Amino acid sequence: MKRDMLTVDDVTGCWAIMPTPSKPNASDPSATDTVDLDETARVAEALVAAGVDGILSLGTLGECATTTWDEKQAYMRTLVETLRGRIPVFGGTTGLNTRDSIAMTRAAREIGVDGVMLGLPMWVQPDVPTAVQFYRDVAAACPDVAICVYANPEAFKFEFPRAFWAQIAEIPQVVSAKYINIAALYTDLNLTRRRIRLMPLDVDYYAAARVDPEACSAFWTSGAVCGPAPAIQLRDLVLEARQSGDWSKAKALTDRIGMTYRTLFPNGSFKEFSVYNIGIEKARMDAAGWMTAGPVRPPYHIVPEAILEGGRESGRQWAKLAAELEREAGR
Amino acid sequence: MKRDMLTVDDVTGCWAIMPTPSKPNASDPSATDTVDLDETARVAEALVAAGVDGILSLGTLGECATTTWDEKQAYMRTLVETLRGRIPVFGGTTGLNTRDSIAMTRAAREIGVDGVMLGLPMWVQPDVPTAVQFYRDVAAACPDVAICVYANPEAFKFEFPRAFWAQIAEIPQVVSAKYINIAALYTDLNLTRRRIRLMPLDVDYYAAARVDPEACSAFWTSGAVCGPAPAIQLRDLVLEARQSGDWSKAKALTDRIGMTYRTLFPNGSFKEFSVYNIGIEKARMDAAGWMTAGPVRPPYHIVPEAILEGGRESGRQWAKLAAELEREAGR
Amino acid sequence: MKRDMLTVDDVTGCWAIMPTPSKPNASDPSATDTVDLDETARVAEALVAAGVDGILSLGTLGECATTTWDEKQAYMRTLVETLRGRIPVFGGTTGLNTRDSIAMTRAAREIGVDGVMLGLPMWVQPDVPTAVQFYRDVAAACPDVAICVYANPEAFKFEFPRAFWAQIAEIPQVVSAKYINIAALYTDLNLTRRRIRLMPLDVDYYAAARVDPEACSAFWTSGAVCGPAPAIQLRDLVLEARQSGDWSKAKALTDRIGMTYRTLFPNGSFKEFSVYNIGIEKARMDAAGWMTAGPVRPPYHIVPEAILEGGRESGRQWAKLAAELEREAGR
Amino acid sequence: MKRDMLTVDDVTGCWAIMPTPSKPNASDPSATDTVDLDETARVAEALVAAGVDGILSLGTLGECATTTWDEKQAYMRTLVETLRGRIPVFGGTTGLNTRDSIAMTRAAREIGVDGVMLGLPMWVQPDVPTAVQFYRDVAAACPDVAICVYANPEAFKFEFPRAFWAQIAEIPQVVSAKYINIAALYTDLNLTRRRIRLMPLDVDYYAAARVDPEACSAFWTSGAVCGPAPAIQLRDLVLEARQSGDWSKAKALTDRIGMTYRTLFPNGSFKEFSVYNIGIEKARMDAAGWMTAGPVRPPYHIVPEAILEGGRESGRQWAKLAAELEREAGR
Repeated sequence: MKRDMLTVDDVTGCWAIMPTPSKPNASDPSATDTVDLDETARVAEALVAAGVDGILSLGTLGECATTTWDEKQAYMRTLVETLRGRIPVFGGTTGLNTRDSIAMTRAAREIGVDGVMLGLPMWVQPDVPTAVQFYRDVAAACPDVAICVYANPEAFKFEFPRAFWAQIAEIPQVVSAKYINIAALYTDLNLTRRRIRLMPLDVDYYAAARVDPEACSAFWTSGAVCGPAPAIQLRDLVLEARQSGDWSKAKALTDRIGMTYRTLFPNGSFKEFSVYNIGIEKARMDAAGWMTAGPVRPPYHIVPEAILEGGRESGRQWAKLAAELEREAGR
Repeated sequence: MKRDMLTVDDVTGCWAIMPTPSKPNASDPSATDTVDLDETARVAEALVAAGVDGILSLGTLGECATTTWDEKQAYMRTLVETLRGRIPVFGGTTGLNTRDSIAMTRAAREIGVDGVMLGLPMWVQPDVPTAVQFYRDVAAACPDVAICVYANPEAFKFEFPRAFWAQIAEIPQVVSAKYINIAALYTDLNLTRRRIRLMPLDVDYYAAARVDPEACSAFWTSGAVCGPAPAIQLRDLVLEARQSGDWSKAKALTDRIGMTYRTLFPNGSFKEFSVYNIGIEKARMDAAGWMTAGPVRPPYHIVPEAILEGGRESGRQWAKLAAELEREAGR
Repeated sequence: MKRDMLTVDDVTGCWAIMPTPSKPNASDPSATDTVDLDETARVAEALVAAGVDGILSLGTLGECATTTWDEKQAYMRTLVETLRGRIPVFGGTTGLNTRDSIAMTRAAREIGVDGVMLGLPMWVQPDVPTAVQFYRDVAAACPDVAICVYANPEAFKFEFPRAFWAQIAEIPQVVSAKYINIAALYTDLNLTRRRIRLMPLDVDYYAAARVDPEACSAFWTSGAVCGPAPAIQLRDLVLEARQSGDWSKAKALTDRIGMTYRTLFPNGSFKEFSVYNIGIEKARMDAAGWMTAGPVRPPYHIVPEAILEGGRESGRQWAKLAAELEREAGR
Repeated sequence: MKRDMLTVDDVTGCWAIMPTPSKPNASDPSATDTVDLDETARVAEALVAAGVDGILSLGTLGECATTTWDEKQAYMRTLVETLRGRIPVFGGTTGLNTRDSIAMTRAAREIGVDGVMLGLPMWVQPDVPTAVQFYRDVAAACPDVAICVYANPEAFKFEFPRAFWAQIAEIPQVVSAKYINIAALYTDLNLTRRRIRLMPLDVDYYAAARVDPEACSAFWTSGAVCGPAPAIQLRDLVLEARQSGDWSKAKALTDRIGMTYRTLFPNGSFKEFSVYNIGIEKARMDAAGWMTAGPVRPPYHIVPEAILEGGRESGRQWAKLAAELEREAGR
């Protein structure tokens, strides 16, 4: 079921971040086999039907940290079998060291994923040579797997500075990056010589596409599983704007999406969000009602209620926007 | 080969931090089976012969992060078989989530370790309820294993504040802590009601024992594997002082040990040390010449030469002190 | 010599950050009267002649922290007398508390500056209500002074989060911000309802102007005093692009400007740059040769030579670019 | 009214941190002359009567940052005139640069203070050479003033590492340090060759005195102005213990003092405390009822009620302990 290796040109449009749906007992530390594979298949199929361009999985909110290797394999297998190559799918093989990430990446490729979203080992804070060599070593050992750099500074204790991007662009398999801080986007585009698709979050996509409409042609969205319409329409409006030169509709939709985020970050702080991100995002998804993300796996299942409620409200607002957009489209 | 569960009273004296000796090719990401089990057995036997009171293993410099689960098991098995219960030994089962740590801890206990040195899952920064519940869950699932809290703030993104210690002391299996920052030692002794042996680093042991000679009756030392004499003699001089009330010899030895540390921390910074700690400590051990720690496993094998040299000089100074102490004892 | 109060519409184009030129003995802690007022007047006149649109002064590299109040007054007086209202000029009145900043701001207005670049008291890290109230209190006490929010997170221990921008936009006198991190630029434009001119650094101006060409119509530049041509031309090319829709020239110049920055940030780190920013920037200016910035005032006059050399090289590269641009324009 | 310069041997016993009592309107940014000089004189006299050994003033909670220079001078003058040399008093002359600190230090010495509690300029984060040179320059310019290093890492963006202490001990006028983090106390005692009196907080004094009873013979206390009895008695019990060798009473009192701190630090965090430290400490003092600290000066006058309440409760507990100790002494 393996396809040819993806290139940067295969990474365009709307990439959904998919969680690892959990069974009702998944917060119990003695639970085994906690992945709801039926819901996994249902959601993957629905994302294809909605028109998303690719799927990223097993990152932070995809609970790479808290699912067992057996669970990860079963989940990736279900994704691959459901998607049947209709859209590309990336698994997640971040771990505590180079050798484990290599072994998991090889196995994931055998299962049939197109690529892996890969973060850095995070026990020790890496310097730039260590971070670059890690990606080089995994790429050298897994020559037919596409790699999406998982550039999360909080999780991986790493600032992803200029020197990193300049060097990482030399690795042929690195085709994209889940990119969070767009402060240096233009600089990083130059440093990577536009060889890597730097994918911003949905609500930053309009700004990124204005900066470089050719190079910034894809984004990631965990909102898509709260109802795909806003993300799909954002993709289409940016595409239209690239051709027509009229960005007003893309901008207006971005502002509506932005309004759904107001309660997501506790006190507006990304650092505080990062402490509870899995719980917040799963609560957001469950409140939106498009899918069942299910309970958080331990040890990250304890989240203050007020913080969960901010996530839920964000999910309800997204779902409301999705419904409005569908209604408007129906007119 | 399992012994009865340890209590806080079983944790006294000099506890050696033992690395996971590596074979010459261990920095190669394609290497497998990288643990030098002969050297493991030799060092464990020599530590018993030297008179250390216990062994902690598979922490940061013990490369818990970068050894595979197969390697960890083989290493712990060798330790257990070599030691044959003569002194207690703790394995290391820190991982990315509660369930993996439970599974590894159970397996380690089956192998025969007396306890585990256990740090927090570090993908997401935990808050206090999450950190406490993690230890509660592992302890509940592994009722016959002693637990040493691995209180490293850099590795685990956690400050180990007052509220943590107050609650963690309620868990019966928690008998000790590898404790780094002694700023709050007296407060933490009170908060834990002296139910947990808070073990400082060798060079902080004199100060800690002055603060509370009864409660602070054990320390950890990675210097022991650079030559055990300074650590053993420090233990004995503190014991003497507790009885005689004359602390001058313990203090004088502490000052000599302190001199060996001058080059260990790059620019005197613990934060910078933490970026390269594995490489620095293994270089220190190899330079001291008492054992072969061997190359660092990836991704942490790339360390600037000037920083390694600081570690080596520290090892040579420790070895010199060990030789001097033996010579003085011979007189 | 006071002019009417500026509005956001008066803040457009190229705003030069001007240092406080120092006499040769300015690093001596016993020196008094260290400002070179002749060079001050010469540079101010030359900036007008070169066509810059405004001047910001007495920020970090303008040595607000290390000049005495007498020196600040003499410097601002010279600026005001030289400029004679031809272009707006902002002084700097950041201090350790609200009352001192009010007193200095009133005095600066009496001297004739159009506005003040104002940062937060930085002894204690402020929370959002404290930061907002500080600006409210200064504005209420100084109703005829325009305020440029000096949004430097390293200096002022403050992240300048969403809630800050939403509230600060309510203060009528706040017309602009010296804005560093453009990660949240689009969001902050919305939160401030485009009532405040958020001014990015020269090398980020192209990206910002793409995001919102109307709202992002001004930038700050400390490069202007290394030779104004690149900054002036950048302003003009962005203006042209806004009208023609063809951004390729603005982009090409931005890339050339970006190349001059390669050595400015030690190890590419803004945090490290911030430790030595005054020395780096003054070395950059002196090496460029367009003006004499002079020695750094204590206590910030001690800077490692390798770090200074990075600044100097950046200055030489900027000067080279300025010369090339003038040559190209001559053709 | 100047006395001979103090030496390290003059710094022993209980040093009270005294706030700058404020008039009822002191939170108003338009207020002038906000220091309550009557209360200043009354409190200073009462501290002498209670038997404290020295007074430190104009630090963080002493509102060095938020009092004007005129207010500081009037306050120091009142202290000097009230104390009439009966006990030593340190003013505070921390500012934004070397020259201002020199000028203020000279003026403070003219007024008659024995020394200054001096922190680092905090606009830019200093490196070690910058920090050391700052103290050298002030000392060289003010040869007859004793200096207490104000070692607050949050306020001054500086870790006060080993290399700092080793070098600062070479400056003859540096006689003491207001020392917060006792993690490295023993090491720092060695590095300073016991030439500087490292003064811990009251609740850490027992632990510090156990580590080195000769060198650790003084402490600082902001509790003294919540009622001096606990601090005075702590001093005396440690002195007794040094002679008798029986530390049990000093320890028991320390534990009672520790109980009063339980609510002082919001969520047990020093970092969070540091955001609101002035408000918390002044609320604590006012609730204890021994003196009137008065309202906080802007911009730090806005503090969440729940955090203030933690301070007040701590003050009430201290006052209760003071009353109990007096009752017990009466028996």
